[in-house]
Amino acid sequence: MNSFGRIFRISIFGESHGACIGVCIDGCRYGIELNETDFFNDIQRRKSGKHGTSLRTEHDTPEIISGVFNGFTTGSPITVLFKNENIQSEDYLQYKTQPRPSHADFVAMKKFDGFNDYRGGGHFSGRLTLPLIAAGVIAKKNIPDININAEIIEAGGKTDINEIIENAVNDGDSVGGIIQCVAKNIPVGLGEPFFDSVESQISHLAFSIPAVKGIEFGAGFSSARMFGSEHNDIITDEHGKTATNNSGGIVGGITNGNDLAFRVAVKPTSSIMKNQQTFDFENKKISDLKIHGRHDACIALRIPVIVEAITAIVLADFIMLKK
Amino acid sequence: MNSFGRIFRISIFGESHGACIGVCIDGCRYGIELNETDFFNDIQRRKSGKHGTSLRTEHDTPEIISGVFNGFTTGSPITVLFKNENIQSEDYLQYKTQPRPSHADFVAMKKFDGFNDYRGGGHFSGRLTLPLIAAGVIAKKNIPDININAEIIEAGGKTDINEIIENAVNDGDSVGGIIQCVAKNIPVGLGEPFFDSVESQISHLAFSIPAVKGIEFGAGFSSARMFGSEHNDIITDEHGKTATNNSGGIVGGITNGNDLAFRVAVKPTSSIMKNQQTFDFENKKISDLKIHGRHDACIALRIPVIVEAITAIVLADFIMLKK
Amino acid sequence: MNSFGRIFRISIFGESHGACIGVCIDGCRYGIELNETDFFNDIQRRKSGKHGTSLRTEHDTPEIISGVFNGFTTGSPITVLFKNENIQSEDYLQYKTQPRPSHADFVAMKKFDGFNDYRGGGHFSGRLTLPLIAAGVIAKKNIPDININAEIIEAGGKTDINEIIENAVNDGDSVGGIIQCVAKNIPVGLGEPFFDSVESQISHLAFSIPAVKGIEFGAGFSSARMFGSEHNDIITDEHGKTATNNSGGIVGGITNGNDLAFRVAVKPTSSIMKNQQTFDFENKKISDLKIHGRHDACIALRIPVIVEAITAIVLADFIMLKK
Amino acid sequence: MNSFGRIFRISIFGESHGACIGVCIDGCRYGIELNETDFFNDIQRRKSGKHGTSLRTEHDTPEIISGVFNGFTTGSPITVLFKNENIQSEDYLQYKTQPRPSHADFVAMKKFDGFNDYRGGGHFSGRLTLPLIAAGVIAKKNIPDININAEIIEAGGKTDINEIIENAVNDGDSVGGIIQCVAKNIPVGLGEPFFDSVESQISHLAFSIPAVKGIEFGAGFSSARMFGSEHNDIITDEHGKTATNNSGGIVGGITNGNDLAFRVAVKPTSSIMKNQQTFDFENKKISDLKIHGRHDACIALRIPVIVEAITAIVLADFIMLKK
Repeated sequence: MNSFGRIFRISIFGESHGACIGVCIDGCRYGIELNETDFFNDIQRRKSGKHGTSLRTEHDTPEIISGVFNGFTTGSPITVLFKNENIQSEDYLQYKTQPRPSHADFVAMKKFDGFNDYRGGGHFSGRLTLPLIAAGVIAKKNIPDININAEIIEAGGKTDINEIIENAVNDGDSVGGIIQCVAKNIPVGLGEPFFDSVESQISHLAFSIPAVKGIEFGAGFSSARMFGSEHNDIITDEHGKTATNNSGGIVGGITNGNDLAFRVAVKPTSSIMKNQQTFDFENKKISDLKIHGRHDACIALRIPVIVEAITAIVLADFIMLKK
Repeated sequence: MNSFGRIFRISIFGESHGACIGVCIDGCRYGIELNETDFFNDIQRRKSGKHGTSLRTEHDTPEIISGVFNGFTTGSPITVLFKNENIQSEDYLQYKTQPRPSHADFVAMKKFDGFNDYRGGGHFSGRLTLPLIAAGVIAKKNIPDININAEIIEAGGKTDINEIIENAVNDGDSVGGIIQCVAKNIPVGLGEPFFDSVESQISHLAFSIPAVKGIEFGAGFSSARMFGSEHNDIITDEHGKTATNNSGGIVGGITNGNDLAFRVAVKPTSSIMKNQQTFDFENKKISDLKIHGRHDACIALRIPVIVEAITAIVLADFIMLKK
Repeated sequence: MNSFGRIFRISIFGESHGACIGVCIDGCRYGIELNETDFFNDIQRRKSGKHGTSLRTEHDTPEIISGVFNGFTTGSPITVLFKNENIQSEDYLQYKTQPRPSHADFVAMKKFDGFNDYRGGGHFSGRLTLPLIAAGVIAKKNIPDININAEIIEAGGKTDINEIIENAVNDGDSVGGIIQCVAKNIPVGLGEPFFDSVESQISHLAFSIPAVKGIEFGAGFSSARMFGSEHNDIITDEHGKTATNNSGGIVGGITNGNDLAFRVAVKPTSSIMKNQQTFDFENKKISDLKIHGRHDACIALRIPVIVEAITAIVLADFIMLKK
Repeated sequence: MNSFGRIFRISIFGESHGACIGVCIDGCRYGIELNETDFFNDIQRRKSGKHGTSLRTEHDTPEIISGVFNGFTTGSPITVLFKNENIQSEDYLQYKTQPRPSHADFVAMKKFDGFNDYRGGGHFSGRLTLPLIAAGVIAKKNIPDININAEIIEAGGKTDINEIIENAVNDGDSVGGIIQCVAKNIPVGLGEPFFDSVESQISHLAFSIPAVKGIEFGAGFSSARMFGSEHNDIITDEHGKTATNNSGGIVGGITNGNDLAFRVAVKPTSSIMKNQQTFDFENKKISDLKIHGRHDACIALRIPVIVEAITAIVLADFIMLKK
């Protein structure tokens, strides 16, 4: 269940503090120019080290170990590896008995009977979004005509977000945010009813991104408050262009040629410096918890490039399926 | 792409105004008592004919044509058929040249080069949710310990919703709504990182339901406005029970044993009696459009039982996968 | 696991003595002319009633209940049903305690704890090959340029096969046979390493046909007795035509543009009139078994059209995948 | 299409002369003891360097880069890498214009428009069976109660095979062979009709092994020459034990508790030292071809351990599916 896609198919592996993380991509077109530098820009955008993000700084250097020959994709699976370097695993021992609130500690321990690699979140770590970005870069190269752009539009309820993030950092707290993604130049007709609507596929991947708790397309939750006469998008030309875009570019699960537009809600980082409580499985009672280590005050800051990646992955797959 | 699931796998087929619609379910346990009357209650809940819903009244009688023997499931695929009866296809001819705003008319015509069955929405019709409900009934029987309940909590922005629906009916308009779903007695550990989180699977199916445009788990979009110290759910006992449930019963994509809770946003029905405009593909210009026929003023009224069905389908699949 | 295919995807359902058997086909191209008469020829080829085949004569009338509109495929799932008519279920009661040798009686009883529909083989019945043929007819229409032909080339070790079949019929015995299939006008490049070689896909489906126990491509088992200098197929022109075809048209798992050629081995029908023994689960001892009912002396006689069907299904899927 | 399996799922990647080859295994049980030395025995059995096998000697050292923590599997994907070391790529340049008979050179060039990594067979290389063996080792650890054994039983038609291999080596020729595989202690009830019979799954994977051109279960092709009264396996006790095993342990596609038994036919290695001819794509005419490099005279010698691996992979998946 670490694979996704039908034609353009990705498989992700690795743990935050293991030897490597990586992704294997099956179904990429042959003949696409690809080398390690192609990944740098998107990796850079995900990087921590900015104000409001974690201080864990990795080199995050991609290695292509299969599927590329003489600088071009070959049509066989492309594997991209990232070695883990800046590891401080001793930080994580206490969470085996004191699971962090709203973290995967408790469920992972239960699900894998204690055999999971608990260090740094293991396979559940947000670090796994790094190979996702690598897959996104390759997906984007498969659909060069489509332009995808995601950005944070709100944090802690504010659209001018700097101050609230600073407050969160100063308080040892964290804060949530909203990412908006718009993809332009989308062909009409992507999406496969009944179960593979464009919304179904994008939301499926979006909820793979740790901390995402909601998604809405076009007017989304606002639609529920509207009348049909307000909401309906009037078609204005033979290409299907509409006067408004409350549908977010998707009707009947299928792209209508207008901009694909959606938003995801990102919860505040679960790891906060502030004192918290949790159940202590050793002493069998609720007790105080102090989390140390390197964490993001606003993980949403790092997520736009990941949202772009999953959008590109889904669109590449749909476009290949359509042909 | 009309199939969904890994172990408990459903395939849906049929068109609104064709001979039949139906579902084929592979992977159901053998030895479950099942007969046609088991479907009646949930089918009744989806029925139109209530105030604010369409006047198309079908008998909606399920026929089990395979997979049941002597009143019990056999372990081979279960097929449930519904014959289409109350059909007025002549209503739909005009939409080939005058695609209805926010409807699938335009995209279906483009995607299938005009070969799609356009009558009543064809394979895109909300009528296809009927076999989905049948699959949901069977799914529920596979997970008898879990209790799933969905209800409409808001329409047109109002929690007391009768008046706004009446207004919409009187105006020949339609109105959107929000459905809330809560599932109780969920085991810890369902969900498969990295790509098959519980949120991923539920949202995937939820967006198969026509008119759904948003989904949020737990605090959802509100999370984006919260600090971590407000949002985190403190674990209070060794079963993983939490003091709050902002996570909606899912952390790291995996159920934590608390109630699974999510909401979906349903847009207003696209078909409204009120005058609208659309592009006329024959005359090559924007022109007036008058929609006749039988439509729901608030389609959200009929969706709670469908949301329960998709939840049951996803949970049945996860539980089988876990074993 | 009653589904097969990646783009052209079929799902099969039903039991020999239930209400219906059928197939649901997802991924068929839209715009293909299709009606019930298109199935008649291939269904006729599978029919029993010939010398050496069973006397169970069904009308085998296909009903298309979805996916076709105005005589053309729509691009949504096509479901074809066959009602079961000529049923004599009382014949089968004894096999619950006296499982027939080399039949599925014993394994089905164990696998489904007695809940399986045991009548006429239930879901294991050779009758399920009828929907497979229907899928094959549709597949063939998706790949009109390819010509597929299968025939029985041997029964009971004889290439002049009439006499040995007559002997088997007279003795209340049965006899095995070999089917050869050749497909012409195959494009170069079908097949997907590493796991979806053409041989992998064809053999996967071929072993779904009840009674098939072996498959070989090109020189097949003879290859094992050859030197490379004998076996290698010399390429003689720029289209890849080879002087010999020991490879059966497939090298490295991929079609090379020469005829696709393979043979399947069909075991003798398990149900024979001759006295046999089996373990009696009621009396807990080996006892005599007398099988009544209507059975084929040489089931291989009915299998060529099924082999053509599975070949067409696999090729249609590969060709769609390649585009 | 480089993935296989439903629960126990493997994805293979890499090229013969690229940086690495490897396999990613999803769905392995957690809590299994695993380290690099576990692979050594089976890797050793595949090794070249014996009489009749290639002189390309690799260290073939496996590196586990994910999915194992503190010496135990974690339940997240296990990735095993093998670095390629002993590479002589210059050997392969000529085959772009002079494709080797019965090799993938021609089809790969056509399929990937020349972008494939042609060195050493690239992704088509028999070297990819090394990660397959690694997956097999892990599969075997998931099903410790089952004992699988494969061996070469014939080469060039001889059961005393040494002399014929020596002759092939001396002549610069190659020779085919037959591998027999027997798995003991198989539970009753593995296999999923209609499309996932045990034969379907095993044959699917068997034909992924380069050079395999045939497979037969139990009496296989001999069945076609038998009468039912000879072929039928009489059940002799309540566990389903049969007096004979012409069914190879599978009836109706499902294991019957007897030994699983099958044979695969392996063609002679395509690369031979002897002079051959092929079409020269540069000069547009048939011309002489001289193959240099390091090749196996009897590739079948190295295949038994691979056949065991694919059997273990299929059985592990079926057993997980059954639970």
